[in-house]
Amino acid sequence: MQAQNLAPLHMIDLIRKKRDGGSLDAREIGFLVAGAASGSIPLEQLSAWLMASWIRGMSLEEIRLLTLAMRDSGEKFDPSRLGKVAVDKHSTGGVGDKTSLLIAPLAAACGVAVPMISGRALGHTGGTLDKLESIPGYRTALTLQEFEAVLAKCGASIISQTPAVVPADRVLYALRDRTGTVESPGLMCASILSKKLAAGLNALVLDVKTGSGAFLRKQEDSEYVAALMVTTAEAAGTRTVALLTDMGQPLGCAAGNWIEVAESVLLLRGQRRPESEDLRELSLILAGWMIHLGGQAETPEAGYARAEAAIADGAALRAFLAMVEAQGGDTKVFDAPGGFHKPGAIHLLKAWESGYITEMDTTKIGWAVQRLGAGREQAGEPVDPHAGILFHARRGAHVEKGQLIAALFATNSALLPEPIALLKQAIVFRENPPEPVALVNRIFTRENAEAHLRDAGR
Amino acid sequence: MQAQNLAPLHMIDLIRKKRDGGSLDAREIGFLVAGAASGSIPLEQLSAWLMASWIRGMSLEEIRLLTLAMRDSGEKFDPSRLGKVAVDKHSTGGVGDKTSLLIAPLAAACGVAVPMISGRALGHTGGTLDKLESIPGYRTALTLQEFEAVLAKCGASIISQTPAVVPADRVLYALRDRTGTVESPGLMCASILSKKLAAGLNALVLDVKTGSGAFLRKQEDSEYVAALMVTTAEAAGTRTVALLTDMGQPLGCAAGNWIEVAESVLLLRGQRRPESEDLRELSLILAGWMIHLGGQAETPEAGYARAEAAIADGAALRAFLAMVEAQGGDTKVFDAPGGFHKPGAIHLLKAWESGYITEMDTTKIGWAVQRLGAGREQAGEPVDPHAGILFHARRGAHVEKGQLIAALFATNSALLPEPIALLKQAIVFRENPPEPVALVNRIFTRENAEAHLRDAGR
Repeated sequence: MQAQNLAPLHMIDLIRKKRDGGSLDAREIGFLVAGAASGSIPLEQLSAWLMASWIRGMSLEEIRLLTLAMRDSGEKFDPSRLGKVAVDKHSTGGVGDKTSLLIAPLAAACGVAVPMISGRALGHTGGTLDKLESIPGYRTALTLQEFEAVLAKCGASIISQTPAVVPADRVLYALRDRTGTVESPGLMCASILSKKLAAGLNALVLDVKTGSGAFLRKQEDSEYVAALMVTTAEAAGTRTVALLTDMGQPLGCAAGNWIEVAESVLLLRGQRRPESEDLRELSLILAGWMIHLGGQAETPEAGYARAEAAIADGAALRAFLAMVEAQGGDTKVFDAPGGFHKPGAIHLLKAWESGYITEMDTTKIGWAVQRLGAGREQAGEPVDPHAGILFHARRGAHVEKGQLIAALFATNSALLPEPIALLKQAIVFRENPPEPVALVNRIFTRENAEAHLRDAGR
Repeated sequence: MQAQNLAPLHMIDLIRKKRDGGSLDAREIGFLVAGAASGSIPLEQLSAWLMASWIRGMSLEEIRLLTLAMRDSGEKFDPSRLGKVAVDKHSTGGVGDKTSLLIAPLAAACGVAVPMISGRALGHTGGTLDKLESIPGYRTALTLQEFEAVLAKCGASIISQTPAVVPADRVLYALRDRTGTVESPGLMCASILSKKLAAGLNALVLDVKTGSGAFLRKQEDSEYVAALMVTTAEAAGTRTVALLTDMGQPLGCAAGNWIEVAESVLLLRGQRRPESEDLRELSLILAGWMIHLGGQAETPEAGYARAEAAIADGAALRAFLAMVEAQGGDTKVFDAPGGFHKPGAIHLLKAWESGYITEMDTTKIGWAVQRLGAGREQAGEPVDPHAGILFHARRGAHVEKGQLIAALFATNSALLPEPIALLKQAIVFRENPPEPVALVNRIFTRENAEAHLRDAGR
């Protein structure tokens, strides 16, 4: 850029521009992100800009600029010394979604580096860090140096965001939660990708949820966000694919913290059970894409086969246990997962009608899990590792009145009534079975994402 | 209202409702205003609601509820003990607009009580309090008890908002200034009227500015706000009229602080000069309406005549001097207004072309006045009582190149160049005279305001 005598920027002018439907340019976005990270722009001004961006929408260029400026707002991780292709997966958030616990060791076992900076339970959705922390001793708050050491040793590491990585997002993410500006495609894209790109990834697999448990309920919104993230990440030089996947029921049979870890370990041990089959399938598909993009398989399908073999030969389980140990976790708890599980109170929910389970409102189920003690109302609150729900019947199953359909685990019995009521609203029985729902209903890659955005014309 | 088991309100839900184009109900507005006044709702959440309201607009009912909830958020003044009808005037803000200094004593001299809670210079517009404080000793920060005592003695009092009156507005007004949410009809209406209604007024005359110096530049926006304020104030039981008046040039010849007081005192002394004729005329019209609504004249025209007589017989000047003295001001400065005026630096601006003055961009002129030292950048900053601009030629005048058109008074000479440049952009000379502009171009009363809102269909 030429040296220019540019007038100083004022946040008030940026707010007005966005309020009136304009798009901020590179210099303006840079000013805003630096001010958010340093605290020089007050929260109330950032909040006004967030709301204006939510309502007016953001241009593709604006979203790209925001993503890159946020990525560059703090420390970054450089995985190049690992000597492997670095690939991560990100999900837009679901209920019972423990695929991260599976795909990290699966991809690592197949020669891909998986530097995963993950999140906590938020609203009705669970968080990978909370699940891992149910393993006694597991430390998620590693420094970037420790992160690199675990990656070098185990191929995968799952840690929490350090305060120095993407500091602008820590400010904006918390603010969006308080100001009703979460569900904006542009803001979501910038928040998610800035953190992923700051980890120096070579490739990224995105799992964009659709259905009753997804943050974005409408299929077209999920498609738009998926195509937007692929286009934006590719423009930043990261090979990216997005899979739209079903969140019309919890993924697998467990939703909580420890019980999700236990379900994952069973699968890594090669056990197959009908109620975990969708979780196994989606994990293998996602891992297959990671292994493919990580240069360890010609096609995603070949990657799937390699991941399946890594379960069969125990390599994935070994990678998982190595990671847990390297991060301070006590792997002895896996010897008797049921014995370790000590919830404060249990309620066995029986079918109140006979029929096919046709609907499971998964946002309601997610809130039930949260209110049992497994999630949190506000950032920073502790969660109960033992709380959660284990489903004994899932969508499409035929049950008889009085048959056990779910076990609820609460911190204490006083917490049981609300989740029970939520489940009774969430689960619908009908005479006829529901239409089957595809686990993966659409895939966006750099080949079709841009065209989709053009056609969507937002 | 029936006793109901109502769920507790959460600000985040109110923000989302407004964001999605909904209207808040009485309970929600009450919760929001109480939270703004007490500080229990954080600024960033108020800011998100303000921006959503700015962009989505507010319903008439929502604006009415907000106005009344804000009015009731703190202490109120009760003028009933004065034994007179209490009438005030409010202007939406202009340049050189010193009508308050004239209409308060004019209406008081004609038997109306004028309890005026006024404001300070903001942006490019001047503030009545800053003008009055250029009189040595004049105190604007009276308690409501002192306010009542001055009113009982002099019939008029002009004070600043006390911290206890409409506390919700103090929070929201400062926030709107920082978050780009000033120019919203609904928010403007609620902010202005809540303060006026908290003074317990029986009637109110609104001066809504139009033209190049007005906050709302478009005629239809000014008309909408005028009709909105009349409808809302009438619904709250206050007789209200709104006059749309020209702010296409500064009002009168002086724009600043002391020089505006001096111009006002000359008029109250009965002196007539062509360059102050528009100010005199508008003040008499506004005072005429106040005297009419205050029950002291059958018609606004009869009120105008009574106000004119109060200048001629010296009653208005006496009322002004009594008020200044009662509020601690030194009235000796009026003996030689020119001698009291001691600006730090003077520049005489001469016409750079010959021709008719066809345009005076009054927002630019207002900024020039502010940058000479008469206004402030941010709330709380001091202003220079001696800074300002005295115009020797006004719109429609024919001037010869080199003829004196304005005297600029600055705090120091370093402040002169920017205002000079602004004036050179603001003032346009043409070969032919401009079309004449009506001083009052429209009047809204309860008879026509509601129909206007319906037709405007916002």
